[in-house]
Amino acid sequence: MSEATKTVAIFGPGLMGGSLLLALRARHADWSLRVWGRRPDALDVLQQKQLADFCSTDAAAVAHGAKIAILCVPVDKLTDVARAAAPGVPTDCLVTDVGSVKERIVTELEEIFREHGNFIGSHPMCGAEATGLEAARGDLYEDAVCVVTPTPQTRPGAVVAATAFWEDLGSRVLSLSPAEHDHAAALSSHVPHAVAAALVELLLSGPEAARQLCAGGFRDTTRIAAGSAEIWEPILLYNRHAVARGLTDLAQALQALALALENNDAAQVSTFLESARRGRQSLTGEQA
Amino acid sequence: MSEATKTVAIFGPGLMGGSLLLALRARHADWSLRVWGRRPDALDVLQQKQLADFCSTDAAAVAHGAKIAILCVPVDKLTDVARAAAPGVPTDCLVTDVGSVKERIVTELEEIFREHGNFIGSHPMCGAEATGLEAARGDLYEDAVCVVTPTPQTRPGAVVAATAFWEDLGSRVLSLSPAEHDHAAALSSHVPHAVAAALVELLLSGPEAARQLCAGGFRDTTRIAAGSAEIWEPILLYNRHAVARGLTDLAQALQALALALENNDAAQVSTFLESARRGRQSLTGEQA
Repeated sequence: MSEATKTVAIFGPGLMGGSLLLALRARHADWSLRVWGRRPDALDVLQQKQLADFCSTDAAAVAHGAKIAILCVPVDKLTDVARAAAPGVPTDCLVTDVGSVKERIVTELEEIFREHGNFIGSHPMCGAEATGLEAARGDLYEDAVCVVTPTPQTRPGAVVAATAFWEDLGSRVLSLSPAEHDHAAALSSHVPHAVAAALVELLLSGPEAARQLCAGGFRDTTRIAAGSAEIWEPILLYNRHAVARGLTDLAQALQALALALENNDAAQVSTFLESARRGRQSLTGEQA
Repeated sequence: MSEATKTVAIFGPGLMGGSLLLALRARHADWSLRVWGRRPDALDVLQQKQLADFCSTDAAAVAHGAKIAILCVPVDKLTDVARAAAPGVPTDCLVTDVGSVKERIVTELEEIFREHGNFIGSHPMCGAEATGLEAARGDLYEDAVCVVTPTPQTRPGAVVAATAFWEDLGSRVLSLSPAEHDHAAALSSHVPHAVAAALVELLLSGPEAARQLCAGGFRDTTRIAAGSAEIWEPILLYNRHAVARGLTDLAQALQALALALENNDAAQVSTFLESARRGRQSLTGEQA
């Protein structure tokens, strides 16, 4: 194996892991890709597609010889897979994950990998409603924001190595503490997901005509609610304090708006909408 | 003028009115299109583009000879324009509007047009974040749901004539009472709009990192919040009771979810998300 050849171990060949395999294969044909999966049939598909050089349901065996190990399983499966992989992780291996919640996960994974490799948490912000290997895309990480979350326990070099790895895939890397990440992710992703789901439930509780009137706006607003409940339930629970606080703040804002409407307070309603319109445009750089 | 030639009067050449002009010109080159606008310079643009045969800032003059008159101004401008146009509207003219709220508007317009033409309310569900003639598109009404809202005061023939007009433009027409429309529109459009705005405000109240983490999901969920406050403020106010009720119901659902999260109640969170996921997919026919 040449100096330049890297061995990468991916744990979990779903949307995130599968997209990593596609991106790495396309960029680095000479790298050795090792994959852990729970289901042998999914691993067979990867080998048929030549997306993996070694596949196994034995996590420690997959970790063997890896320079980079990335845990790509749902957040509530991370610690089990990490415990199984840890004994096989080489001392100099960069270990990271792609979980959507960081504080609880980073604490747990730092403990598990204390004696194995060089752990730092990551969260590439590029999930989709779709899940599974079938939905994987080689460009999933391009232009995505990827958060890395060092802590006082993070060993020297991990931020630099993780940043280089994600930037190589086209992501823009942002370094935040796990707590900062979780607060920001609650407001930008987890609360909006829960609210989209609540809007769907509100619509379905109404008359049949409400369903028939769903135009493009409703479909855009609630698109993320089509995401897998199996993946989102642990995300919301693992970040439950920040999400609950965001939901409570939002509920209060909606109550205040309802009161302004009942009071026919045009000035307050107008100020609210105009502030949001300007804010939304500042996020995207769109013009009026 | 041949039997087949129709004279159509459009009041307000913005997104909705401008798109009507484009669609009618493309479908019926021999129809005579008459346009009322507040600003002479906007009318000059229409004549330069040959999208209108007669333009004026005098609403009654524009209504002269029309078989169909469509009021395409924001909901809070409708009654003023209707009062100005009414004296010029021929007895046999179908009169309708495109306002996003119906109960209050239909009551007001039925009164104004009692002696002038044949009025019925319409609401084509095809607005966009963009506004104005520049954003107009000839296919805006294609595949859109268009609600027509007859009442006991609606004269014979109006439903049939309005339905034929919108179906000719490619819309799917649904007949609802004004109150049914407003309840359904609150749940499918007005509440989601207000909630998207509230999500933007919540995000902007958080740390800078929250803005930096806005991925595609947040952008989809809040896209409609980029819509014009000038147009949406009167929509929310004109439908304020139904919207306030929807916002209050949603706020209660979000509080209940926040409590379930604080209680770490995985079963309740999972049931909520799975129900919404199935509901969202039933709206679009998308598969899991």
